[in-house]
Amino acid sequence: MADEVILLNFWPSPYGMRVLIALEEKGIKYVNKEEDFSNKSPLLLQMNPIHKKIPVLIHNGKSICESLNIVEYIDEVWNDHSPFLPSDPYQRSQAKFWTNYVDTKIYDIGMKYTKSKGDEKEAAKKELLEGIKVMEEQLGKKPYFGGDNFGLVDVALVPLFCMFYTYTFAGKFIDDEKYPTITSWARRCIQKESVSKAIPQEEKLKRFLDENRLLHRGD
Amino acid sequence: MADEVILLNFWPSPYGMRVLIALEEKGIKYVNKEEDFSNKSPLLLQMNPIHKKIPVLIHNGKSICESLNIVEYIDEVWNDHSPFLPSDPYQRSQAKFWTNYVDTKIYDIGMKYTKSKGDEKEAAKKELLEGIKVMEEQLGKKPYFGGDNFGLVDVALVPLFCMFYTYTFAGKFIDDEKYPTITSWARRCIQKESVSKAIPQEEKLKRFLDENRLLHRGD
Repeated sequence: MADEVILLNFWPSPYGMRVLIALEEKGIKYVNKEEDFSNKSPLLLQMNPIHKKIPVLIHNGKSICESLNIVEYIDEVWNDHSPFLPSDPYQRSQAKFWTNYVDTKIYDIGMKYTKSKGDEKEAAKKELLEGIKVMEEQLGKKPYFGGDNFGLVDVALVPLFCMFYTYTFAGKFIDDEKYPTITSWARRCIQKESVSKAIPQEEKLKRFLDENRLLHRGD
Repeated sequence: MADEVILLNFWPSPYGMRVLIALEEKGIKYVNKEEDFSNKSPLLLQMNPIHKKIPVLIHNGKSICESLNIVEYIDEVWNDHSPFLPSDPYQRSQAKFWTNYVDTKIYDIGMKYTKSKGDEKEAAKKELLEGIKVMEEQLGKKPYFGGDNFGLVDVALVPLFCMFYTYTFAGKFIDDEKYPTITSWARRCIQKESVSKAIPQEEKLKRFLDENRLLHRGD
């Protein structure tokens, strides 16, 4: 029986992008269903009754919620190639530690930066750059956070990082000279079809943020 | 070579208790080193340079940080008995979803309840009870959240729950009649030696909280 894989998604969400990247990396056939946030579908409410949020993966009728949980699930089910996690328990624990750092530190501050103005925005920017410096040190000389493989930490970080790094409207404050290692990593990731397909075009996202008054440039 | 297992801990921390429970459940020999929070040890700063927080597990000289990450690591390394997670990817994803719910929802509100006063404390209590109701529905008729096995969700939830459930100074607002299923679960857990050893005695914790002015009863 062929697998039926449905993704309930909302294209501007970096959390949804993580799942898109994971599905593309594994070469899984899936149907992407876009949710309307002013009118959540009965399917979304049924499949994620606790949080009522995207992304939700529906695999042969069963739902898996929360982006990193979904990425790990995909990795465990489609385990014949492109592993996102190493098999050694210690290496796994380190990858999960850094994934958690990305999720709780970088994403939380990134969201604060996006939504704030003035001094608060400046403080969030400073904090975000400190977090990026930590990640840069962690990356070191490896091509990916997963070593030679594009792994869980890479999948977790790349959507938000690419948005801050490439979109001029976001302030473009992550500069190649100050952060040579992690910006090289980002360019390496964007060359992957899985990543470039998942990250929306700047103009499209800018229009969405403008229309929904979600963009504060801090100026 | 015998494994060298050291836990950097601080006994009133429910996060540290999770690791203690996991170590005891697996029957692992370990050395528990208590940290002094007014003067963090050089070992703690060296072993968790990013967060500088307990719990940290040091296994044969290598450190693993963050309580749930440590519990998963313990489960993967000492995998010959008492598994904390099922082997089926879908069942694993569900256990991790609920573990995350416990960690981000129940613990965050629990900490807010502990630290707040007055109206804020009342609001946190209400929210906490709603979360407990959700967990009670999730438990259903199973003896443990892990089904027949005491699993990851159980390890994650039991320290904080037992403190609220058993300590009279915490307000004792989780009552057996209103929450029959989850209070039965808690009593079942406390009967386990791993759990009863990890949860501090009420008088000892009360003295610590009083001395450090961390206790607000909301009255």
